[in-house]
Amino acid sequence: MIRALFPFALLLVTGVAHADPLPSWNDTATKDAIIAFVDGVTTPGSADYLPEADRIAVFDNDGTLWAEQPFYFQVFYALDAVKAKAEADPSILTTDVLKAAAAGDLKTVLAGGTAALGEIVMASHADMTAEAFNASVANWAATAIHPQTGLRFADMTYQPMTELLRYLRDEGFSTWIVTGGGSHFVRAFAEDAYGIPPEQVIGSMIDSEYRVIDGVGQIWKLPDIAFVDDKGGKPVGIDRNIGRRPILAFGNSDGDFEMIEYTTTGPGPSLGLILHHTDGAREWAYDRDSHIGKLERGLDEAAERGWIMVDMAGDWSRIYSGDPDKAD
Amino acid sequence: MIRALFPFALLLVTGVAHADPLPSWNDTATKDAIIAFVDGVTTPGSADYLPEADRIAVFDNDGTLWAEQPFYFQVFYALDAVKAKAEADPSILTTDVLKAAAAGDLKTVLAGGTAALGEIVMASHADMTAEAFNASVANWAATAIHPQTGLRFADMTYQPMTELLRYLRDEGFSTWIVTGGGSHFVRAFAEDAYGIPPEQVIGSMIDSEYRVIDGVGQIWKLPDIAFVDDKGGKPVGIDRNIGRRPILAFGNSDGDFEMIEYTTTGPGPSLGLILHHTDGAREWAYDRDSHIGKLERGLDEAAERGWIMVDMAGDWSRIYSGDPDKAD
Repeated sequence: MIRALFPFALLLVTGVAHADPLPSWNDTATKDAIIAFVDGVTTPGSADYLPEADRIAVFDNDGTLWAEQPFYFQVFYALDAVKAKAEADPSILTTDVLKAAAAGDLKTVLAGGTAALGEIVMASHADMTAEAFNASVANWAATAIHPQTGLRFADMTYQPMTELLRYLRDEGFSTWIVTGGGSHFVRAFAEDAYGIPPEQVIGSMIDSEYRVIDGVGQIWKLPDIAFVDDKGGKPVGIDRNIGRRPILAFGNSDGDFEMIEYTTTGPGPSLGLILHHTDGAREWAYDRDSHIGKLERGLDEAAERGWIMVDMAGDWSRIYSGDPDKAD
Repeated sequence: MIRALFPFALLLVTGVAHADPLPSWNDTATKDAIIAFVDGVTTPGSADYLPEADRIAVFDNDGTLWAEQPFYFQVFYALDAVKAKAEADPSILTTDVLKAAAAGDLKTVLAGGTAALGEIVMASHADMTAEAFNASVANWAATAIHPQTGLRFADMTYQPMTELLRYLRDEGFSTWIVTGGGSHFVRAFAEDAYGIPPEQVIGSMIDSEYRVIDGVGQIWKLPDIAFVDDKGGKPVGIDRNIGRRPILAFGNSDGDFEMIEYTTTGPGPSLGLILHHTDGAREWAYDRDSHIGKLERGLDEAAERGWIMVDMAGDWSRIYSGDPDKAD
């Protein structure tokens, strides 16, 4: 039996060893640099070799692992959730902003700026248990449709990035999300979407407190900001939840600058990457002047810092994980 | 070759399977209950079977994984650190409390209560990088001696608990520390002492911010409380860093009550344990009236809640991990 299976097993092993770990990445200098870095830190005897515990890779989410236009997907969730809540109980619509949100009047909401968005986020994210919020987001992520692409939001994760995450884990890395979005929000779909478990998602947080409800201990979400995991907050969030300096950081906006800087100024080998949204045909093209995912300092300093600019149009053969026919 | 090695390999496998995973635990109902619970959640086909990702076990540190008398070891560290700092720069001794600390005048420090302790903690824990603090604590833990036992603090971890941690990990559990002590403080020795990496230590925190110092991104510790990981804060800390409800919780004081309650009121199998300090001969005996590790509600409610009271005197054949001749 063993003898009979042997040639097949050998074929499998050979096939795995030679398979392209990043099939949706074009054969460019970017892909070569990523693979060379991974080979360096994982090959025993290499000058850059690091044990698995040190192979910590951190990723921004919005605009890095999935799309973020025309505005953060968490805002779409918040609007949908306010609408659903208002259908069950119209008395929650206590302000003009909330009324506009429930009516789908996006113009009025956006005109209200950060304060209006904050109002909608709190109305949809607070005054409930973490478990109830998680269930609501998971259901939304599995069903809601992006108004421009017609894809489910959950299918607008980037196929090349899910391949990179899997490749890194196969090579003994731990992969972490470090997002300006809410940690509870991203945890609700990160395992399905990226293979990343809740404990490896670090994000912004609203306050919460422990309550016993019907005899069951629960985390109750409160309508105040507790932590903003953006810019200098990202290294702080990394320190709070990981407690070690990463060796690979991947972002797309100036909100990720400090995370990449923290990662690449430590001792030993490191790799910093910035996804440059250059593909107006298949996705959106934006950088310096964008109201979402503004990229200016990263664009100016990446070369001198040795960070890799990933050119979405040139480096990726495919964009979205879902529905490749539509997306390609 | 394979045939020749076979009997030896079989012996090894049998030996491992039958070895006692908890040799420093006496053969009591407590030990039986722990092993029965682990068998239940790890045996495929069992009604209580859970996949590895759900096997989350959380442990208090002070008084649960290592001793905490006559006061928390982190306070010993703080006193030693203030003294060392003052030797390098006497001008830091700006208050009577700090002067008393540097002089080793514990009576005056303790008479100042929480405010005095806070002063000493901030003087020794803030205004430095997280990396510098980590190095200082690691060095202290490896060398400093407990004034009453003559053991290194690092050797006053409980041998039965390090065995339990290892046993649980061998059975596919992840093991987490959820401590009222500082996360940076405990992370500095948790990997050596317990085999628990930094990212699985959740604790209290002072504020911190990101700074670039000599071109290197650093976490800078600031002298303000950011999070108290005690009582209701423990479930909140668990939610922030793990994002899932544990199935096993082990504490020793009323500061752990909510953590154990959160763990044992969820759906599915769970186990709550409280270490009762009953051994005045080999360790310290204390509960309701102790100024450190006060245990009252847990003592009153454990039975009705189905939590296991671990009797240190009766359930443990050995106390400390280090120096068994002295400790036994």
